[in-house]
Amino acid sequence: MQDCVFCKIVAGNIPANKVYEDENFLAFLSIDPLSPGHTLVIPKKHYRWVWDVPNAGDFFEVAKKIALAEKKAFETDFVLSKIVGEDVPHAHIWVYPDKEVKGDKKDFALNAEKIRKFLK
Amino acid sequence: MQDCVFCKIVAGNIPANKVYEDENFLAFLSIDPLSPGHTLVIPKKHYRWVWDVPNAGDFFEVAKKIALAEKKAFETDFVLSKIVGEDVPHAHIWVYPDKEVKGDKKDFALNAEKIRKFLK
Repeated sequence: MQDCVFCKIVAGNIPANKVYEDENFLAFLSIDPLSPGHTLVIPKKHYRWVWDVPNAGDFFEVAKKIALAEKKAFETDFVLSKIVGEDVPHAHIWVYPDKEVKGDKKDFALNAEKIRKFLK
Repeated sequence: MQDCVFCKIVAGNIPANKVYEDENFLAFLSIDPLSPGHTLVIPKKHYRWVWDVPNAGDFFEVAKKIALAEKKAFETDFVLSKIVGEDVPHAHIWVYPDKEVKGDKKDFALNAEKIRKFLK
């Protein structure tokens, strides 16, 4: 969708710290993270709300993959998720470790690498 | 699991304002709602964290059903979701309408009935 920031990331027209990609979904770090490794999981196709995404189960399975990798990457049991959607009008699920984990939330390159390591 | 409040709700030993039930999952109103219709979706089997639930896709499909019903029941586009898990140690997904919707969040009987109506 034209003028959608997340569609531009999918198309490669805006850079992002990607941690996961498959045929239908993409996951990348938030540029305004609540904690180190704060990730957004999105469908590549444009939908306004998470609840509009037809393959919702597959969508959530990707969020789960990210959550399990974050648990290992940031050595915590506490990985949270939020679905809001008023910020950017392209369906997205936040997956992020508890704020108490160690690390610099703005060190995107390192945090993305940490998550990718446990997604392999 | 003994001493787990949500397991007791599943077993019928603690009452709850149920809105949905199938073989594997149960959804009922929060007793401390953020907004009218604030629902908790849980697996009937005990797991500590949402990320431990094996059939995560199915779990989320139930959350989606509730979200779509809440959109209609409370006439809003804004239905949010949160996965935290530090409050009650039994996997649960919160699904709740935006706080701006009309209605008394403590009128559990009415709010449960409104959601159930759109789940039929």
